[in-house]
Amino acid sequence: MKNPVERLREALIGTDSQKAALVFSERNRRYFTQFPATDGALLITAEKSYLLMDFRYEEAARYRAQNCEVVGFESLMEKLQGLLTQHGIKAVFLETEMLSVAQAKRFEAAFEKVGIQALLTTQLDDAIRSLRMIKSPEEVAKIEASQEITDAAFSHILPYIKEGVTERALALELEFFMRKQGAENVAFELIVAAGKNGSQCHAVPSDNVVHKGDFITMDTGALLDGYHSDMTRTVALSQVSAEQKAVYDTVLKAHLAVIDAVKPGMACNEVDKVARDIIEKDYPGTFGHGLGHGVGFEIHEWPRFSRLDSTPCAEGMVITDEPGIYLTGRYGVRIEDMLLITRDGCRSLTKSPKELITL
Amino acid sequence: MKNPVERLREALIGTDSQKAALVFSERNRRYFTQFPATDGALLITAEKSYLLMDFRYEEAARYRAQNCEVVGFESLMEKLQGLLTQHGIKAVFLETEMLSVAQAKRFEAAFEKVGIQALLTTQLDDAIRSLRMIKSPEEVAKIEASQEITDAAFSHILPYIKEGVTERALALELEFFMRKQGAENVAFELIVAAGKNGSQCHAVPSDNVVHKGDFITMDTGALLDGYHSDMTRTVALSQVSAEQKAVYDTVLKAHLAVIDAVKPGMACNEVDKVARDIIEKDYPGTFGHGLGHGVGFEIHEWPRFSRLDSTPCAEGMVITDEPGIYLTGRYGVRIEDMLLITRDGCRSLTKSPKELITL
Repeated sequence: MKNPVERLREALIGTDSQKAALVFSERNRRYFTQFPATDGALLITAEKSYLLMDFRYEEAARYRAQNCEVVGFESLMEKLQGLLTQHGIKAVFLETEMLSVAQAKRFEAAFEKVGIQALLTTQLDDAIRSLRMIKSPEEVAKIEASQEITDAAFSHILPYIKEGVTERALALELEFFMRKQGAENVAFELIVAAGKNGSQCHAVPSDNVVHKGDFITMDTGALLDGYHSDMTRTVALSQVSAEQKAVYDTVLKAHLAVIDAVKPGMACNEVDKVARDIIEKDYPGTFGHGLGHGVGFEIHEWPRFSRLDSTPCAEGMVITDEPGIYLTGRYGVRIEDMLLITRDGCRSLTKSPKELITL
Repeated sequence: MKNPVERLREALIGTDSQKAALVFSERNRRYFTQFPATDGALLITAEKSYLLMDFRYEEAARYRAQNCEVVGFESLMEKLQGLLTQHGIKAVFLETEMLSVAQAKRFEAAFEKVGIQALLTTQLDDAIRSLRMIKSPEEVAKIEASQEITDAAFSHILPYIKEGVTERALALELEFFMRKQGAENVAFELIVAAGKNGSQCHAVPSDNVVHKGDFITMDTGALLDGYHSDMTRTVALSQVSAEQKAVYDTVLKAHLAVIDAVKPGMACNEVDKVARDIIEKDYPGTFGHGLGHGVGFEIHEWPRFSRLDSTPCAEGMVITDEPGIYLTGRYGVRIEDMLLITRDGCRSLTKSPKELITL
């Protein structure tokens, strides 16, 4: 597979030597160059790509940035004007979702001075979104490496789940373990919700303590080398009721049905419906969120397994499969894997067991 | 001091009942209302201020948001259209630094439908910037509380700095310590750079290990109750050379000269020059960044102690004083305090010692 700068060039510029794309946002710059920096810009022309970095980052970027030539600057605008003029560029695509109104005005003014047009359409945003939805084998390997840490954290935390321990203590232990294993960060603010709190799908870990008979839902993930993992498991402390077990089994059935069904060409909202129909049959109105979301370079990417997203699944997408049942004021269950869409189905990137674990 | 919503109204709208300001960005919403939420909007008219929140945040906002009336919404645009029409508003100031081009287009279209103009000038940004530059006594107290954790982390880390320890292990220990002390997060990705890595002023902590004779630069800070602290110290492991010591002393001299010189009315670029002249004299071209930046509600705020910022210093500003010398491929030194500009000078909010510590 070509590198992402080559893929973007192919999709947006082709061989048009008068067009260029300017990737200014921090996230997208890192995606294309694998180099994290809070400031700078990536300029892509038909022939070349330049990463413009100020003094603070220039030296490190020369060692580590990929798919581009690093050039230093004192004034970003002057350096850009020079490069654009040198390449005979007449129009520059800019991001609109990630660029502020004020930034756009500054670019427009600077480009106008040298007779160049700023293109504030959604074309660059759309092209980047399409690229980022399809993960390269290298990206999949990074997501799997990130998930390895998350799987290890799940095994690590089980002996800590005891009567009286707080959700917050469990969340901190999960986080510190992942960081010590090499994660650069957690993928998001980890969720640990026990008992009644499990009915809030976005619960914040609190001083609520674990009791016997509780379900404990843990939504966890690591950030490693720029890539996110995302997994949810729900475990039980001591015996749970037959009703709780039935809820668990229904969520698991919905989760597994998605793994069986999903394949290239199927629309995202059809995939959502596979899980939703199973849950709605016995527990109507208890699955209040979408089935999942793209994940990788960001924790929430495109497409979405939701009722509103009709994007067809395609080989190379990585999407979460995370159905849940939330019984308000009582308890909740969610089970989540990351699925890589393959040529004829999918492969789960998550290794932790999902049969109910009773501690 | 009036609350920040009243101060903004006074600066931007006065008694003009046909004008309103819409604060949409997450950061500025939190600044004005002290309520953190990923979505929503704050509408300020001559008479009232409304915080618009969806169902996820509405209840919590009613308990905790300050300086506004909380109203729920299902459709943000429809709710806004209703409130603006009800108040007879004709024109709405929008942020341009924090609003994306795509978001601005959505607001413009929604307002146009009800005959209201979106004002995409810099007036709202400028007014917010002026407000936020001057810290209230309550804000200074929060910055000092955050710095207390950072000072404690510096004392805590010294015994860990030994031959063979990695930069990464030191950064993690600093972070975990601050989190356990109650910090909601670190203020930024902590920097620990030893030996050669110290010449990159924004080095990322790596597996590089500390050796005898190394300078170790630690740029650290905590986030507590929404407020950031920021401090840099450079320490030595075992004996360093006379040349290293001379570099350290020059940075310290530049740092202290700023504390002596800064006072209300002095332009930021003059303050930068105080430190720069001292370093340039003996180590020309080695101090490649600005002297400092405003800090508090965000880690990088206005004004900047740089050659480009001629803002006059004013009582209530909190700015970092962080000169450095970077000898490419060899080593680096940086020393940083946060300074509160007072009526006739400044007061450092940083308590850690800055004479060279040799471990």
